[in-house]
Amino acid sequence: MNPEEPTAMTPPGPTIADVVFPEQLNHRGTLFGGAAMALMDRAAFVAASREARADVVCAGADEIVFSQPIRPGDLVEATAAVERRGRRSMAVSVVVVAETLPTGERREAVRGLFHMVVAAEAPQAD
Amino acid sequence: MNPEEPTAMTPPGPTIADVVFPEQLNHRGTLFGGAAMALMDRAAFVAASREARADVVCAGADEIVFSQPIRPGDLVEATAAVERRGRRSMAVSVVVVAETLPTGERREAVRGLFHMVVAAEAPQAD
Amino acid sequence: MNPEEPTAMTPPGPTIADVVFPEQLNHRGTLFGGAAMALMDRAAFVAASREARADVVCAGADEIVFSQPIRPGDLVEATAAVERRGRRSMAVSVVVVAETLPTGERREAVRGLFHMVVAAEAPQAD
Amino acid sequence: MNPEEPTAMTPPGPTIADVVFPEQLNHRGTLFGGAAMALMDRAAFVAASREARADVVCAGADEIVFSQPIRPGDLVEATAAVERRGRRSMAVSVVVVAETLPTGERREAVRGLFHMVVAAEAPQAD
Amino acid sequence: MNPEEPTAMTPPGPTIADVVFPEQLNHRGTLFGGAAMALMDRAAFVAASREARADVVCAGADEIVFSQPIRPGDLVEATAAVERRGRRSMAVSVVVVAETLPTGERREAVRGLFHMVVAAEAPQAD
Amino acid sequence: MNPEEPTAMTPPGPTIADVVFPEQLNHRGTLFGGAAMALMDRAAFVAASREARADVVCAGADEIVFSQPIRPGDLVEATAAVERRGRRSMAVSVVVVAETLPTGERREAVRGLFHMVVAAEAPQAD
Repeated sequence: MNPEEPTAMTPPGPTIADVVFPEQLNHRGTLFGGAAMALMDRAAFVAASREARADVVCAGADEIVFSQPIRPGDLVEATAAVERRGRRSMAVSVVVVAETLPTGERREAVRGLFHMVVAAEAPQAD
Repeated sequence: MNPEEPTAMTPPGPTIADVVFPEQLNHRGTLFGGAAMALMDRAAFVAASREARADVVCAGADEIVFSQPIRPGDLVEATAAVERRGRRSMAVSVVVVAETLPTGERREAVRGLFHMVVAAEAPQAD
Repeated sequence: MNPEEPTAMTPPGPTIADVVFPEQLNHRGTLFGGAAMALMDRAAFVAASREARADVVCAGADEIVFSQPIRPGDLVEATAAVERRGRRSMAVSVVVVAETLPTGERREAVRGLFHMVVAAEAPQAD
Repeated sequence: MNPEEPTAMTPPGPTIADVVFPEQLNHRGTLFGGAAMALMDRAAFVAASREARADVVCAGADEIVFSQPIRPGDLVEATAAVERRGRRSMAVSVVVVAETLPTGERREAVRGLFHMVVAAEAPQAD
Repeated sequence: MNPEEPTAMTPPGPTIADVVFPEQLNHRGTLFGGAAMALMDRAAFVAASREARADVVCAGADEIVFSQPIRPGDLVEATAAVERRGRRSMAVSVVVVAETLPTGERREAVRGLFHMVVAAEAPQAD
Repeated sequence: MNPEEPTAMTPPGPTIADVVFPEQLNHRGTLFGGAAMALMDRAAFVAASREARADVVCAGADEIVFSQPIRPGDLVEATAAVERRGRRSMAVSVVVVAETLPTGERREAVRGLFHMVVAAEAPQAD
């Protein structure tokens, strides 16, 4: 990658999407925060892999904010976009939207920023 | 739902999408067929829920065809579309595309037809 | 395998059997359809492997019908039988029976037909 | 249950049976001992539930012996039999046999003794 | 809790500790970043619950830095400490150390800061 | 290892510790006995690996006693100690304590004895 090059378009639609199952819940019956972070990490991985067309890994994350609980049976869609890229690293924003399927009501539930690097340089594989 | 009404548009992008992890592999190192069927079932559930805006369940499946293996690290995208709807039931087609992320190569890997019904009538919850 | 040869006897008892745990439930509290299909796929894999004594994979499935919900704590038994075999492929029927353990009540819950092929020819590993 | 009554016949075939998947392996590539113990515990639960036709739980285990490793792709069959029963408790033997599916080779891999009690009396639900 | 009160001592030893199994690996064979974040989230939950003796949830995370890969068979120990507390919120640092068990070699692998709030106020259950 | 040598000190704090999630529950809503045995097996593996600084595996278990149920949201801490060692084998005691986090109430829930051997001699990898 060349530094500070404009990034590729994010494809339409979510990067990662799934229905929330009981195995991902905490003891309060809502999506476990760690499960949400894992979903976001996979979305950042896909967006950075598509941008770099190389094997990328997560080097860190910041500004993760949980704003709404996610419930069993909800559809969760994580949309990731490469915001900035340097020679070997990318900053990827991830927004998670939850949809209550029987009503169609949608709401932002989590967002955060993930730092991805090309794997040859990587301290942590992802 | 009224019988034989034209169905709603499928939103752009995949219905369900995820990265393949080692826990979903069979002993040959490719995606376990049952894991693929479970992914397709969730995609059919989302498409039928959005069409009916009711709680829907899977009553059966047909014409499931595996055409290409899926490997760890691939992105799998399942796109579901309601093909026909009756008063209480829907036929939902699901196509699974696998993407090798470092190269961007994409290929159809599985397809099938799922029969979904509104839950009050349902023999099997999904 | 020789084409159209009579198939081996199915051993007595279930091919695959397990107790249903909460991690396999959908948000309605019954066994997720995809989990049932995955169980059936494993049963078909065992029956076809025993018939061919070779590495086999799933090439497709048909006529999957869910007739009764399965609940947490139920025993589920999937019995698979090779119905027809050609030179490289087998059609395997799978019937899933659920047993409510405290009462002993048993009922057929799902059935379907799986198409298995010897792995060297296989489009999809299982 | 009446104390020291002769126990019901064990049904033919395995009590619990499944194919070993990568998610159940330890870092050495064989079935994790804890996964084998969990399988045996479920088999003991089924045998004791069928004997007592009541909700039973595990109160303890003894004499668990691992004699052969179990590999990915193996079929594992756990057969449980109620050996002794008192008024509220049962001693259940469990034997795990592994089958290498492409060859049909079968071998005993683990055995153990589980102590099950009727749930109203139970210190630990199972 | 009173604002800016000195926090309780962290108990000796790790807050959360486990052996890394294949199901937690990414396709490169090292611990998936999302699995590490989930582990840290559970450690922060325990430390904040012990500090507040109330039901707490994760409201966000920052400054997550991956510095060393974690391999299958490693012991991972996450130690969490409440760094600051306000009336309803706590900032909890989490450090993950990986130990290669056959050699005893230990190294810091990940660290981060988690924001926990008392659950009655919580946007996201954990 | 030399036979009957005094064993190394157990490090302070738990060997394995985690929060109980719904995916580990049985259908009664308490920790599945098999999940508790798997936790104990991992703790014994860590203690024996640290003692021998070699690859060890589980050869068996005895005297497993469940005394108290464990509930979702509880912290479970398994502390393992090498009690005896011979030339190639070790007897490792494991005690599991459950802590109700909002109250701080702690209680012993399970204990048992695990037999670990150095892996070159091992019938079962762990």
